[in-house]
Amino acid sequence: IQTRLPKVGTTIFTVMSQLAVQHGAINMGQGFPDFDAPGFLLDGFERAMRSGKNQYAMATGIAPLRQAIAAKTEAMYGRAIDADTDVTVTSGASEAILDAVMALVHPGEEVIVLDPCYDCYEPAIHMAGADAVHVPLDPDSFAVDWDRVRDAITSKTRMLFINSPHNPSGAVLGEADMATLAELVRGTRIIILSDEVYEHIIYDDARHESVLRHPELAERSVVVSSFGKTYHCTGWKVGYAVAPAALSAEIRKVHQYNTFCTMQPAQWAFAEAIEQHADHHLGLGAFYQPKRDRFRELLGQTKLRALPVPGGYFQLADYSAVSDLDDLAFARWLTIEHGVTGVPLSPFYETAPEGQRLIRLCFAKDEATMVAATERLARL
Amino acid sequence: IQTRLPKVGTTIFTVMSQLAVQHGAINMGQGFPDFDAPGFLLDGFERAMRSGKNQYAMATGIAPLRQAIAAKTEAMYGRAIDADTDVTVTSGASEAILDAVMALVHPGEEVIVLDPCYDCYEPAIHMAGADAVHVPLDPDSFAVDWDRVRDAITSKTRMLFINSPHNPSGAVLGEADMATLAELVRGTRIIILSDEVYEHIIYDDARHESVLRHPELAERSVVVSSFGKTYHCTGWKVGYAVAPAALSAEIRKVHQYNTFCTMQPAQWAFAEAIEQHADHHLGLGAFYQPKRDRFRELLGQTKLRALPVPGGYFQLADYSAVSDLDDLAFARWLTIEHGVTGVPLSPFYETAPEGQRLIRLCFAKDEATMVAATERLARL
Ligand SMILES: CSCCC(=O)C(=O)O
Ligand SMILES: CSCCC(=O)C(=O)O
Repeated sequence: IQTRLPKVGTTIFTVMSQLAVQHGAINMGQGFPDFDAPGFLLDGFERAMRSGKNQYAMATGIAPLRQAIAAKTEAMYGRAIDADTDVTVTSGASEAILDAVMALVHPGEEVIVLDPCYDCYEPAIHMAGADAVHVPLDPDSFAVDWDRVRDAITSKTRMLFINSPHNPSGAVLGEADMATLAELVRGTRIIILSDEVYEHIIYDDARHESVLRHPELAERSVVVSSFGKTYHCTGWKVGYAVAPAALSAEIRKVHQYNTFCTMQPAQWAFAEAIEQHADHHLGLGAFYQPKRDRFRELLGQTKLRALPVPGGYFQLADYSAVSDLDDLAFARWLTIEHGVTGVPLSPFYETAPEGQRLIRLCFAKDEATMVAATERLARL
Repeated sequence: IQTRLPKVGTTIFTVMSQLAVQHGAINMGQGFPDFDAPGFLLDGFERAMRSGKNQYAMATGIAPLRQAIAAKTEAMYGRAIDADTDVTVTSGASEAILDAVMALVHPGEEVIVLDPCYDCYEPAIHMAGADAVHVPLDPDSFAVDWDRVRDAITSKTRMLFINSPHNPSGAVLGEADMATLAELVRGTRIIILSDEVYEHIIYDDARHESVLRHPELAERSVVVSSFGKTYHCTGWKVGYAVAPAALSAEIRKVHQYNTFCTMQPAQWAFAEAIEQHADHHLGLGAFYQPKRDRFRELLGQTKLRALPVPGGYFQLADYSAVSDLDDLAFARWLTIEHGVTGVPLSPFYETAPEGQRLIRLCFAKDEATMVAATERLARL
């Protein structure tokens, strides 16, 4: 078999999770909570499932969920969203990303990604027959160097991925970034793919700078989000894309021939959750902030250096004080010898910075898990 | 926006279902039952959901489900399946089809489809950058004319779709078809994509002729199936692909960057259902046969001519005795003026046979629905 994806192996998340299971390590790698989804969500699911909502949903998503997404998005970011034409429910954010890229990018075009970036972007671009152009973020702050982005733009550039709060670094984009971005793409045919799955997990009273706050950007953006991170149910795989009608129409063509529609009872549960439990998504930053702070406090008792975490639920830790191993080797060693699993950073790059010694640890965990993991890390 | 899928509009299933809702018609169009999934399935889902199985599943599917699929498939078709390497759980059969085509077909290659065929095949082929080559089935019997298939094969042919029991016609392939197919592809690089989502719905004591019964075919086949049709839960969107390890490895690369994994609690429910309620899937033909027979009996009181239905849960009906409209116009008229929705056949073709007057009616319905629908049809 001649492969269509020569650069693709098994995702680093799967590799590390399997290694964690194999060695009985505490898994702080793949991004998922070790606590359960809220009871109201499970109850909502059960009500829908027990009332016969088990057949095909509308391919674009059930109307109440699209309406709830539109209303919530408008309330948060001040942009009017048409639930009928601008919202498409998908089987997770990654399906939404693949759908958008397959629908909107043509073979031979270029798509700019900012390294490090989430690992599904580049394969989606390759599946569309396009080329990924990698622009590095600042290796210390993970800020975007917009001049480098500008230099990477060519007449073939069709799409630019941004991601705030950023996975793996937790960095967030600010208003100045948005203003620069708007100026940069003005007059071009560049579509912004804005991965905002951590939109509700932002700290220290900062506000999430969605592209939807900026009309000039919103007009040319596909915003992808997910309920997995927001409702502690990463295994339910429901996400969505918000985009202007003309872009959504193309995304829907791919979606209807990909998964067609998304599990119906889950859609009812999320529609109800958004409307009747807005405190949940609005309070998610406040829910995670003590976890972040506690985890950083515990890491203070180790030789790992914790980088700042403005958003998301990942902590980057520099391990140069304890090991000279490269990050893939270090992550394996840490799992096998010390019983703690993190995710190495190099798989998020085309070319990782020389000598970078960073590991990503997920702190969407209960106190006991954090304590147990950091006790092990303190022995390094 | 320059579209990547110029031939694609909204699927005929969505168009007809929306028209049915709009006009309060009885919806016999889109293929879904009007009765609910079995209680054991809902109970199994609930147990999994309430015991904290709500985070990411393994991307390839939870091991118990892959094992249950492998064991069931081996029991039915006599082929040993490796649950670790040969089975990939997907978010519905249509995701499996897109993953397989994207993974295994290269731009510029050709894929043969047999018209009429399910509407997601061609868009998947186009998304892969390949060309669909349409070979018509016999317009009366819907049998495959293997000589025409042979004539369509070129050095560029990479894949051939088959589908038995066949949607929309209900025709089934027999042992002779399989022998001819094996001879036809021997020595070529053609991969068979065998869509077997109606594998358990077969009538009159016939046996389902899976490609997996035929080692020579199995070695070069991707078999796609789905739990939606088998467990009366089309809205749950869980399917799978069974293929030799080398093919599965490529399919998994696409799958992990498409939906990544499929809803975890549903996977536990299906694993339990397969193992503890084998009578359900093994008895599905016997469950649907009285419905098929009853619906045909009721149709006998109308001027529609019912074609034979060896498998699946669709009845093709020839309406030439009641109308000269083309099938798209007839299906609209039937919905709007007579309150019954079926699916016209021409969208399943590149070029439908001149003067064909067929509509597809789904009989996965309760007695009352069938009676009400046929009463309306009797007025034609
Ligand atoms: C889909 S597995 C990866 C989950 C995730 O978002 C992460 O760990 O970064
Ligand atoms: C995905 S909607 C179409 C359902 C179906 O299998 C059919 O009606 O043929």
